[in-house]
Amino acid sequence: MINYVAPVAKLIEEFSKLPGIGRKTAQRLAFYILNSKEEEAVSLAEAIINAKRKTKYCSICLNITDIDPCRICTSHKRDKSMICVVEDPRDVAAMERTREYNGLYHVLHGAISPMEGIGPEDIKIKELLLRLQNDDIKEVILATNPTIEGEATSMYISKLVKPMGIKVTRIAHGIPVGGDLEYADEVTLSKALEGRREL
Amino acid sequence: MINYVAPVAKLIEEFSKLPGIGRKTAQRLAFYILNSKEEEAVSLAEAIINAKRKTKYCSICLNITDIDPCRICTSHKRDKSMICVVEDPRDVAAMERTREYNGLYHVLHGAISPMEGIGPEDIKIKELLLRLQNDDIKEVILATNPTIEGEATSMYISKLVKPMGIKVTRIAHGIPVGGDLEYADEVTLSKALEGRREL
Repeated sequence: MINYVAPVAKLIEEFSKLPGIGRKTAQRLAFYILNSKEEEAVSLAEAIINAKRKTKYCSICLNITDIDPCRICTSHKRDKSMICVVEDPRDVAAMERTREYNGLYHVLHGAISPMEGIGPEDIKIKELLLRLQNDDIKEVILATNPTIEGEATSMYISKLVKPMGIKVTRIAHGIPVGGDLEYADEVTLSKALEGRREL
Repeated sequence: MINYVAPVAKLIEEFSKLPGIGRKTAQRLAFYILNSKEEEAVSLAEAIINAKRKTKYCSICLNITDIDPCRICTSHKRDKSMICVVEDPRDVAAMERTREYNGLYHVLHGAISPMEGIGPEDIKIKELLLRLQNDDIKEVILATNPTIEGEATSMYISKLVKPMGIKVTRIAHGIPVGGDLEYADEVTLSKALEGRREL
């Protein structure tokens, strides 16, 4: 960054590398750091290092964890007969927030996307199939995103898992609770119609 | 952050403290860090610490600097007869980018704002007056923001400096270059009209 002293320019540059952080925001963040107490800056810096150094991926479900295997995989309270397949560790957190699901997870770390050159072998599908061969899984719930990539990934996995005699389900798509029909896009609305249930 | 392991929850919490960074963005940034190389995380952490530890305020102009006095205050190439008064170190950087100004600066670190309880003694006006007494300054350019607070600050300083026999000027306000009259607000437009010049 021109016109700033080196340490400030460097910090703006580093912040700019973060996703969704443009030049202006990076500048604002850098000046916030400069105006904050040193303890606060140290606290942020340490949190960055610790998050990186003290976490890893669970060797079973591939979710982010500090102990391996992770707490969910080793918990005696979880139903070990179902695996919920998600794209990202954030999706595990979202599912856990519902407090409705009590089974295991499998994090794919992406979705199949021919446009971006991401094939089935680039995400953790192989690892999922391995788990299904060994463990006593009765149901695989596909909770990938309702995007083209997410749908393609679910279709792909479903075709591999069904022949193994395991039940495969897909989470429902439709109008979000509290949402307004008027503002729903056509695809969501047609999914909602398609997935209608008798009352 | 519920449902994340401690180091990740801590990082999300730290990111959330930054201005303009909400929960969702903090989460996105944290996962970006988790997915990045360790060197990148270390590089960001170090930049935060360094920006904080290796910078200070120039004892003359109060701009952010790594050496004191700062490079602008000690430069032999700068016109030492004029001081441009700005609210923030970022404004110095903005002025420098124009490459049109060759004088000195004075950073107020804020603007007078009775609403927020910021009085003249809370910003660096005293320090400015001290410089004007000792140095051979011929013009003070008031480049505070065109906000109520910035205008009030400029008025206040102008009333103190004029009696010292020093020329006081205010930067022009008007339609931004490339701007559209149609979309200009009334205040800007009336300022532009007020500041019209004969061609």
